This record gives sequence, structure tokens and C-alpha cells, in this order.
Amino acid sequence: MSDPLIIAVDAMGGDDSPNKVIKGISLHSQRSKNIIYKIFGNKDLINPILKKNSIPPDMFELIHTDKVVEGEDTPLSAAKRGKDTSLWLAIDTLKRNEAHAIVSAGNTGALFLISKLNLKMIENIDKPALSALWPSKKEMSVVLDLGANIECSSKNLIDFSIMGSALHKVLFNTKKPLVSLLNIGSEELKGNAMIKDTYQLLTDNKNTLFDFAGYIEGNNIMDGDVNVIVADGFTGNIALKTAEGTSNFITSELKNALTTNIIGKISSLINYKNLKNFKNKLDPRLYNGAILLGLEKPVIKSHGSTDFIGFANSLKVCEQTIRGNLIEQIKNSINK
Amino acid sequence: MSDPLIIAVDAMGGDDSPNKVIKGISLHSQRSKNIIYKIFGNKDLINPILKKNSIPPDMFELIHTDKVVEGEDTPLSAAKRGKDTSLWLAIDTLKRNEAHAIVSAGNTGALFLISKLNLKMIENIDKPALSALWPSKKEMSVVLDLGANIECSSKNLIDFSIMGSALHKVLFNTKKPLVSLLNIGSEELKGNAMIKDTYQLLTDNKNTLFDFAGYIEGNNIMDGDVNVIVADGFTGNIALKTAEGTSNFITSELKNALTTNIIGKISSLINYKNLKNFKNKLDPRLYNGAILLGLEKPVIKSHGSTDFIGFANSLKVCEQTIRGNLIEQIKNSINK
Repeated sequence: MSDPLIIAVDAMGGDDSPNKVIKGISLHSQRSKNIIYKIFGNKDLINPILKKNSIPPDMFELIHTDKVVEGEDTPLSAAKRGKDTSLWLAIDTLKRNEAHAIVSAGNTGALFLISKLNLKMIENIDKPALSALWPSKKEMSVVLDLGANIECSSKNLIDFSIMGSALHKVLFNTKKPLVSLLNIGSEELKGNAMIKDTYQLLTDNKNTLFDFAGYIEGNNIMDGDVNVIVADGFTGNIALKTAEGTSNFITSELKNALTTNIIGKISSLINYKNLKNFKNKLDPRLYNGAILLGLEKPVIKSHGSTDFIGFANSLKVCEQTIRGNLIEQIKNSINK
Repeated sequence: MSDPLIIAVDAMGGDDSPNKVIKGISLHSQRSKNIIYKIFGNKDLINPILKKNSIPPDMFELIHTDKVVEGEDTPLSAAKRGKDTSLWLAIDTLKRNEAHAIVSAGNTGALFLISKLNLKMIENIDKPALSALWPSKKEMSVVLDLGANIECSSKNLIDFSIMGSALHKVLFNTKKPLVSLLNIGSEELKGNAMIKDTYQLLTDNKNTLFDFAGYIEGNNIMDGDVNVIVADGFTGNIALKTAEGTSNFITSELKNALTTNIIGKISSLINYKNLKNFKNKLDPRLYNGAILLGLEKPVIKSHGSTDFIGFANSLKVCEQTIRGNLIEQIKNSINK
């Protein structure tokens, strides 16, 4: 048997933690083998939950600290006072090569800043990017950067293309991912100079890892025709949040239509199974787990408001990135 | 009776034109009084449609031309060769003060370029902005710029705040619209320098027309808590297109759930009325009609793929902007 895969888990971040974190680990441990979870957090809070949600004793290690990064902390204040918080200690384990990756549902800014302070960048990558899975009419796509870098250069976007492709390959076994640049199409001269430069560079310099499919507009992201969608962090975050808002708006209107009166309720009961399939396909827990790419170890951010099922999914994404040698794949393609 | 309101209509632009244009005018003419439609287009194509869709003879004037701007024309090629196209002639009528506003479902770039070439800007406004109505949980919001200007200054965004507020006021009788700047919130230092400057300027310099409500993220656009959402044209277009794509994705998945099998179909029949209300609320024809703001006359762009009901709605928007003295409202607030 090969060496176990070690995931560092910050148990204290996000809503309803450490409860959802421990329950999420328990769920994930039932589906996976040869994993050790290094759990960082307050043992007085965690042990009672462990009693109710068993994890095989050889699959976890609990490292106690009663210090936590709060949701309200600024990244800087968290980094300054945080050397013995669960988040800092979890990242420190990665730094000391005692874990392969980290998952946290806590403060995003603090997670990224402390990761950047403690972990090396992959050689020849200038900026880390936040990537996530995006549902589509076909399979899921990877979209990045979702907000780590407000302003980006062409070099950054090319790095993002490589990192996003490696991630899609690792998660979905894609032979050669298709990459597009997010842009607007309403004007004769599309986009700004930086995007146009990137387009030219990606067209002129083929990469063995992916194929470049040109520009994509926001209304086509969910068609699923490309695997990786690349943008600067400001644009990517605007797209992500707008999609979230639109989805919430439509599903809340739909819920009204299906529950507003007795007829709506009866028809929903009759169509329960189809509606459940519909709901499942849009379930954000399925694609929970944003990945900060570009550091020497994968840093996975679970949504703060997800539940244990969502947290278990972010552990699954984490496991896939390690088993698929994500970082090696990126290194091999960056150097080409 | 006051002087009639005169709308110049390019009958030849967009899918299924002039059919949908004439049918749309016919529909709008039944609901409105004291309007004259100046219809520009090919009489050989228009007259047969007029026979089937009556418009009171004192409510329209048909100005013949067999030249049209094609959908494939670049704005520049349309402007160069287009002096006797239906689009150019319609705008020219505005220039000569023989109409109050224009509606076209044709080539967006050509409409904007030819409008900018022929119509003066409102004094002290540097750039025109493309604005549109956006559905929300409460009433509709105005969002701008949706793609007319890829790069914007703080001055531009402040102008957009004023113009968007005047539009919301005119369309919805809002006493004092609430304005927000579209931004991202995932990082400690939100947004770029230009957005932060605009925030400061809008906070320090109150405008009598609107109240400034700070930043808004994409996921809150549809909450309906603010009336006007301001962004540069690149960001606004990304948000608009992503919302469109998300909406299409979800409604197509829902359609599958409701029609995939006999149970889905039966339950939809039972819940027909509620689902119809749901569908109506999302019907893009309801908010058809993007408005290019900043020129001395309102320029209304109907969606190219809408039908006659959507076109009639863009005529309604057009009528409201004129009756509500939109341009005067903007002028009064810009000078303050």
C-alpha cells in the first residue's frame, strides 16, 4: 500500500463549525481509503461531535488549539495575531511537508494571505488564482480567477489557462481541455488591450496541455462547450456573483410558483422526482470547493455557508487534486 | 391637445423585420394616444403588413428607402455607406428635430455609432452609456453601462449614476432613486482605484437627484434593494450576459424537469397558471428596450431577436422617456 494521503483540515471556519467539518470528514472517510485527516481545532468542541460521527481512529489526528480566525478578521489582522490559530497551524503543516493539501471553510482572505505567506509559489507562476467548478448543460467547467487578483497581465491569464486546464484534467480526466477567455462581444473592438494581447499570445504559442478556443461571452459559460474559462479576478468575480444572484432569483420565483397555493403544492408533489433531479443538478454543494492554484500545495476553500455534504465534496475535490498530481501537471506545463 | 409625440422607427432591423416592427407599432398604437410613428423602410415590404395590422392613418408616416444596414455590417462600414439606409434616415430625423426619439431592433454598433455621429451629447456628459431594465425580487432596476464604453473614468460613472437615476425616475416615478456601484467583495481592498475614487466622490458630493447606497455585488443585483446599478461597460456587459446565460441554463433544465416524462407534463398542466405567472415574470419581452443615454435625444435599442410584443414594449419605454422629459431631467441634474 502506498503512503497515505494527508489532508490538513481547519475545523473551526465557516457557519456551524466544527460540527459540519467533522460530519463532513466522517462522510468522506466512508467513501475513501488510505487517507489521514489532520484536524486542527478546539478538542473540547470537537470531541463530543466525534462521538456522534465516527471516523476510524487510524484515519485522523486531532491537533488542539483554542485560537481561531474569526470571519470578521481582516486578512492582515488574522495573519498578524494568528500563529496559533487552527488556520495558521493547518497551513504550517503543509509548509513542513507534513500534509499534501488543506481544506478550510473559514475566512477566505485570511486563508489566502496566510497560505501565500507560508507556501512557495510554483516556479514561473507570478500570481495564484482562485478557481471553482461551474455547472453547465454538459459537464462542469473550471472558471478562474474568481477574485484573487483584481488586475492581471497577459502572463497571468496564460498561467491561469495552464492551471485551470490541469485542474480540469485532474478532476474530469479530460484529455486536452478547451480554454476560452471571458470577454464582451457587443462592440466592434472587443475587450481591452490586455485581453487582446492574451488572445494573440494564446493563438501564437500552442501549449501541449490545452487547446485555445478564443473568446467566450458570459451567456455561453453554461453551454459547456469549453472546459476552462479564464478571466482576471475582478471580471471572474463579477460573473460568479451575478450567476449566483440570478440563480437565487429564479429559484426563489419558481419556489413561489410551486408553493403559492394548493394547486402548486399538489403539482409539485406529483412531479416530486423530476423536480428533485432538477434541484440536484443545481445544488451548489455538488460543486463546493474553490481552489487556490499556483502555490506548491493545493489550498481548498469550502463555502462558509455550506453544510457537511458540501464540506465532504470539498474534501473530495481536495483528494482528487492530490491523487491526480495537480501540482506536478502544472509544473510540467509551465516549464514548456 | 398638446403637440403629438413623434417616434422615429427603423422598420428594417432585427429578426423578422419589418413584420414584427409594424405589428409592434400596431399593438402600441392601440394603447397610446397623440403619437405619430415615423416609419423608415421598404414600402414594398411594409405595405402588405400594414394591410393586415392596421395603424390609424393619422398616427403614422411611411418614409420609403430600400437601403438597409445589415446585421453583419461593422458600425464603421454601416456609417460610411449608410446615408440612405432606414437607420440613418431615422436618426437624421432626430437631428433635424422632426422626431423626439428613435427605436431600432437592428445592428447595435451601427445604431450607436450613427447616433453619436449625428446627435449632440448632453452638455457636460463625456460618454453615452447603454442602460437596460433588470428584473428583481421587487421592482425593476436600471443597470448601466452595458457595453458602450469598455474603459471608464470616475467622472463617467458619476454621469451614469445621474442618467440612470433620471431614467428610473421617469419609468417608475421613483422619488429619489438609490444608486450603487457594482464591485467585488471578496478581498480586503475591494475593486480597482477608479471604483474607489468614484465611491469617494459619490459619498462626498451629494446629488439632489439620487441617494448613493455604496457598493453592490453581483449576487445582490436582483434583490431589488437599489434602483440603479452603475458599472463600466466591460463589467456591466459581463454581468448582463452572465445573468442571461444563467437564466437560460436554469429555465432549460426546468423545462426538462417539467416535460421529461408524462408525470412532469401532467403536473405542469395542473400547475399551468402558477407556472405561467412565473414565466411571465421572467419574460425578457417585458424589459425589452435598452436605452443609449447621454445624447440629446433618447436612442432605444430593441433586442434583435424579440417579437412584436417585445418591440411594442420598447416603444412603451421610448414613449415614457419622452413624456417624462428624461433628457431635461438629466440636464438639470448634470448642471448641479
